[in-house]
Amino acid sequence: MSDSTVLENLNPHVSVDCVVFGFEFGKLDILLIERNIEFEGKVYRDLKLPGDLVRKDEDLDTAASRVLTELTGLDNIYLKQFLAIGSPGRLLRQPRDMEWLRTIGHPEEIVVTVAYYSLINIDQDKAANYILQKNACWYAVSEVTELAFDHLSILQKALQVLRTDLNLKPIAFELLPPKFTLRQLQQLYEVISGLKLDKRNFRKKVAGLPFIAPINEKQVDVSHKPARYYSFSHKIYLKTKKDSFYSAT
Amino acid sequence: MSDSTVLENLNPHVSVDCVVFGFEFGKLDILLIERNIEFEGKVYRDLKLPGDLVRKDEDLDTAASRVLTELTGLDNIYLKQFLAIGSPGRLLRQPRDMEWLRTIGHPEEIVVTVAYYSLINIDQDKAANYILQKNACWYAVSEVTELAFDHLSILQKALQVLRTDLNLKPIAFELLPPKFTLRQLQQLYEVISGLKLDKRNFRKKVAGLPFIAPINEKQVDVSHKPARYYSFSHKIYLKTKKDSFYSAT
Repeated sequence: MSDSTVLENLNPHVSVDCVVFGFEFGKLDILLIERNIEFEGKVYRDLKLPGDLVRKDEDLDTAASRVLTELTGLDNIYLKQFLAIGSPGRLLRQPRDMEWLRTIGHPEEIVVTVAYYSLINIDQDKAANYILQKNACWYAVSEVTELAFDHLSILQKALQVLRTDLNLKPIAFELLPPKFTLRQLQQLYEVISGLKLDKRNFRKKVAGLPFIAPINEKQVDVSHKPARYYSFSHKIYLKTKKDSFYSAT
Repeated sequence: MSDSTVLENLNPHVSVDCVVFGFEFGKLDILLIERNIEFEGKVYRDLKLPGDLVRKDEDLDTAASRVLTELTGLDNIYLKQFLAIGSPGRLLRQPRDMEWLRTIGHPEEIVVTVAYYSLINIDQDKAANYILQKNACWYAVSEVTELAFDHLSILQKALQVLRTDLNLKPIAFELLPPKFTLRQLQQLYEVISGLKLDKRNFRKKVAGLPFIAPINEKQVDVSHKPARYYSFSHKIYLKTKKDSFYSAT
């Protein structure tokens, strides 16, 4: 398709933005796109969330998947729509953002963005040889203090949703290898919640969850005492959830 | 404002739709708007969700609140954004729907609707003397089999979200009076989930939840043996949730 055909096929009023969290043991990252903008004689370098206008022939979920696949080469990634934002003037914060939208051929009147978050296990998916698109890079969430447009506020809301979901749904196991140690599980909860957890309480809690069970295998080739591996059973999880109502603690 | 000023102030590309659930003991209702459309010489009467285009100067949440307040006179109602839908052709199912959009001055090119659900305790709010707008009426959810546009699919998704939320969050208590019997609580779970629950198991479950406690008061003026009242403590609920991760059962 030529550039003009592509533009004609875009809906100028709706975009999707993806908050792609990446987990490596010890660190929660976010995938961001670097922009270099020249505006009024100055060059700005800043960061934005991956996103795009929605095509006229695709629905919102398809658009978000497309953005993610174009960016990483990966598909079948956990992807959750969590927020639609349509505040008047949400893109008008920085004059240079408007200028940039014009230069890449996007109109200025995007009115709604639908935000998705997704989770990638960086370690595991490295093995799958994903290749990041030019200008895309992982950044530590804790170090992101400024983003283009209203993207920092979208990131903050995604983080809230991720933390809530982590407590309510078994998404932790999307981010862990099939066999994991309790130390790795605790580290994941600590990294995402931003809280330090007490080891004894955490292990007591896990011991009460029938869907997390030890397997007959231990770490090898580690310098410390090898830890036992655990696995998550989705089947047992579904069974225990079936007729429960919210969390008895 | 004149009609044309109102129309000028509307964003033709974004709408909000509200799935307003009403609970009366024994029944889950939904608030729907009756349409009478004449199309190709025939008169159609059908039902739709309350909704409107978003105004250019308001954000999505404000638009949804406005629709609800205009409809019922109530504000401060539990209102949750749960889905943005932008499937191509979502409004094109029935030619008469297009005709109707034209006659009320709305353009045909609405591209995204953002759906909210809200909960109203019909009994309690009757006391607040809310008045429904003309053409709006409560219908039993179980009897709704057809709606205009893609509204039936929006209703079905709202019902899924409501059922999930009912198991994860204390929204049941938005729908119950401040003091309630265990029979009333069970009935609420049964009505929303569409499942018959075992009384003994349900009471055992409730007994394990520290935030639902008996109070020193019983029913009066009832023809059966008066039941004890219970109350929900939001404070204790928050405390027990503080450092839990998802549901231990």
